[in-house]
Amino acid sequence: MISKQMQQEIAGSSAIRAMFLEGKEMAKQAGAENVYDFSLGNPMTPVPASYNQAIIEAVQKENSLELHGYMDNAGYPETRQAVADNLNQRFGTDFAYTHIVMTVGAAGALNVVFKTILDPGDEVLAFAPYFGEYRGYVANHQGILREVKPDIPSFQPDLSDLENKITEKTKALIINNPVNPTGVIYTEETIQKIAAILEKKQQEYQHEIYMVSDEPYRELVYDKNQVPFLTKYYANTFVTYSFSKSLSIPGERIGYIAACPRMADCGQAIQGLSVANRILGFVNAPSLMQKALISSMDARTDVAYYDRNRQLIYGRLTELGFTCVKPQGAFYLFLKSPEPDEKNFVMAAKKHHILLVGGSSFSCPGYVRLAYCVSYEMLKRSLPAFEKLAEEYRNHL
Amino acid sequence: MISKQMQQEIAGSSAIRAMFLEGKEMAKQAGAENVYDFSLGNPMTPVPASYNQAIIEAVQKENSLELHGYMDNAGYPETRQAVADNLNQRFGTDFAYTHIVMTVGAAGALNVVFKTILDPGDEVLAFAPYFGEYRGYVANHQGILREVKPDIPSFQPDLSDLENKITEKTKALIINNPVNPTGVIYTEETIQKIAAILEKKQQEYQHEIYMVSDEPYRELVYDKNQVPFLTKYYANTFVTYSFSKSLSIPGERIGYIAACPRMADCGQAIQGLSVANRILGFVNAPSLMQKALISSMDARTDVAYYDRNRQLIYGRLTELGFTCVKPQGAFYLFLKSPEPDEKNFVMAAKKHHILLVGGSSFSCPGYVRLAYCVSYEMLKRSLPAFEKLAEEYRNHL
Repeated sequence: MISKQMQQEIAGSSAIRAMFLEGKEMAKQAGAENVYDFSLGNPMTPVPASYNQAIIEAVQKENSLELHGYMDNAGYPETRQAVADNLNQRFGTDFAYTHIVMTVGAAGALNVVFKTILDPGDEVLAFAPYFGEYRGYVANHQGILREVKPDIPSFQPDLSDLENKITEKTKALIINNPVNPTGVIYTEETIQKIAAILEKKQQEYQHEIYMVSDEPYRELVYDKNQVPFLTKYYANTFVTYSFSKSLSIPGERIGYIAACPRMADCGQAIQGLSVANRILGFVNAPSLMQKALISSMDARTDVAYYDRNRQLIYGRLTELGFTCVKPQGAFYLFLKSPEPDEKNFVMAAKKHHILLVGGSSFSCPGYVRLAYCVSYEMLKRSLPAFEKLAEEYRNHL
Repeated sequence: MISKQMQQEIAGSSAIRAMFLEGKEMAKQAGAENVYDFSLGNPMTPVPASYNQAIIEAVQKENSLELHGYMDNAGYPETRQAVADNLNQRFGTDFAYTHIVMTVGAAGALNVVFKTILDPGDEVLAFAPYFGEYRGYVANHQGILREVKPDIPSFQPDLSDLENKITEKTKALIINNPVNPTGVIYTEETIQKIAAILEKKQQEYQHEIYMVSDEPYRELVYDKNQVPFLTKYYANTFVTYSFSKSLSIPGERIGYIAACPRMADCGQAIQGLSVANRILGFVNAPSLMQKALISSMDARTDVAYYDRNRQLIYGRLTELGFTCVKPQGAFYLFLKSPEPDEKNFVMAAKKHHILLVGGSSFSCPGYVRLAYCVSYEMLKRSLPAFEKLAEEYRNHL
C-alpha cells in the first residue's frame, strides 16, 4: 500500500484536473466543437516567436555542455541578473542578481519558499478564494493553511478577519495578485493596509511574518490596471513568479523567486532558497529555458486576446442576469452560483456541455470559476448554451 | 528568521557543492589549468548532436502551444510510450506507457516516489556509501533513513546487516546501481539475494517493502558489465532514471519513474506518483525536453571517454600504492584515505590543488570520492600532483 496521506490525496484529487479529463471524454463523444471547456487555466495565446527563436539560437550557438549543464542551484548568474534588471527598471526596486533564485515554475518557487521558512506546525494564511494547490504546498512542509474571508462582493480581502487570524504561529501570508479565481487585483491601498497589519503583528509576536506573493498573472492585466509590486510595501517579502502565462509556456516549468533585499537575515534566507531548491529535488530551473529567457524579459503573449474574451463573456453573462465581479486581470471569472450548492449548478452547466469548476475547489462554495483562456470562436459558440442555462435558472438570477 | 530545519540544513550544506565553489575560487588564483577539480559529478562528454537537433526540430515543427504547454502530470503519452518501448526492448519487460511517469530528473523522481509511499516515521534503508542527498529526500517526506553497512573491500552490500536493519517500520530500500560513489555494480546474484530477503520480510510484516532504484548511471558501464534491471527480480519496485548522465544534460532536469506492472495496487501507486508530481510543485517534467527525447531513447554520450579516464586514473593511483575498488560503472572512484580521518587527507590533497570529497558525505568516513568526469588532458596534468601526494603519504600507503 502507498502512504495513507497519498491515499487521501488521491481520493480528494484535483477537481480541476478531473474536469479537464472529463472534457476530453465529452469531446470524443459530442465532437470537440460542441464542448465548451472552461475548466483549466491553460494559456492559449501564441508563444512569442522571439522566445522560440531564442531557444534555437541558444542550441545553435552556445556550448552544449554549458547550455544543458549544472550551474549554481540558484540559476545562471546572467539569467538572474536579467530578471533583477528587468524588475528594477519596471518597479524601481534594487535587486542584485543574488536576490533572484530561478525555479521550476511558481509551484516550485512556492514549495522552495515554504521549505525555507516553515517549521512543523507553522501557520500560513491565504485569502479565500484561493488556488487549492496552496493547501498541498503548505502541507508538504508540515505547515497549516488558515483561510481569511473575502469581502463580498468586491472580493478584496476582509482585513479585520486577517487581523483576527494572525496568531503566534503565523509565519506567512500568501498574496496572489491578480487573483485566481476571481480576476480581482488587490489595490495599492489594500496592500498598504495589509503591510501595516503584518508590521504590527511582527512587533507584537517578535518574529517575522513573511509575505509570499504568487504572481503568475502579473502581466495579464486589463484597462491599464496596475499590480502593486510587494517588496516596495513590505520588507519580509518573497515574490514568486512564473513565465507560464506571460509567455504561454506552462509545460516548461520556469519561474523565479525575488527576495526583498531589506528582508531580515536576507543572506541566510537566500542561501536557504538555494538549498531548498536542491533538497526538494528541483536542483535547478531547466537550463535551456533559463538561457532563452535572458533576451526575452519583455516578451509577452497576446494579452489583448484574453481581454477581448473577457469583454465578451463578462458582458454577455451579466446581461443574462448572472452575478460576478468584473475581472481586472488573469483569465478567470468567478460566477455566483444561482443555487446555494454550486455543485448542482456545475452539473446543470455540464448538461449544456459547459465545463466549470466549483468554488469549493477554491475554498469558496456558492461560486464557480470560468477560465476564459479559450479561443474566441469557441467562446462565441458557447453563448447559446449559456443562454439556455440562464433560461433554466430564470427565477434564480 | 527562516525555519530551524533550514538553518541546520544550511550549516551542514552539501560539502560537494562547497568544494565545487572552492575549486572555482582556486582556479581564479592559481589558473584553471593548475587546479585538478574532481569534486563534482558534472558530465563533460558531448551532448549527442542528434539530441540538440531534436530540440531544434521540435521548436520549428511542433505547435508551440502544445510543445510548451501543460499535459497530464505524468507526461506526454508518446514520450512515456517511447520510454516503455525502449525498456521492453532492452530488458524484456512489459511496461505500458501508463507505468511510466516523466519527472524533473532522478532527484525529482525520488521525491515523487517517497511522497507517494512514505507516512511520517516510515524507515527507508540505503546501502552505505550512498549519495548524501538521499537523507534530505527521505526527510522531506518525514521518513527516516537507516544505513546498511558495506562489505569491504568489495563494496557489495552486507546482506546480513540488511536483514538485521529491516523492521516493522521499513517501507523501502534504495538501490543505486552503478553506485555513486564507488563505481561498483551490484551483481545479479546480489540483487536476487536482496529480493529474497525483502520477500521474506514482506511476508513477516505483512506489508509492502518497496525497492526504489536510482539509476542515473545505468548506461555508464565498462568492460561489458551488465546492470540488472530490478523489476525483473522484485515486483514492488520503482525504477527512477535521469537522462542527465547518458545525454550530458543534467541542467535540463528530465527523467522518469517506471513502476513495475506486477506491483501491489499498481494503479493506485501510479495515480499517487502523478498526484505527487503535481503537489510537490514539479507539475510535470519540462515539456520541450520530453518531446525531444522521443527520438533520442538510444542516444548516448561518449562513454568510451570516461572509460579511458577510468583506466588512466585507476591504473596510476593503484601503481602509486593507493587502495580502491575498481570502478565498473559511473564516473567515480572511491579511494581509501591513507590516514584514518579522511578530512586531513582531503586537506593535504587540496594543497596540491587536487579537489576531492570526503567519504563522510556518503556516510563512509575513511574514504574519499574522486569524480573522473574531467578532461583527459586535465587528468594527465594532475598525475604529478598525485605523485607528490603519494610521496607525502609514502609510509601510509
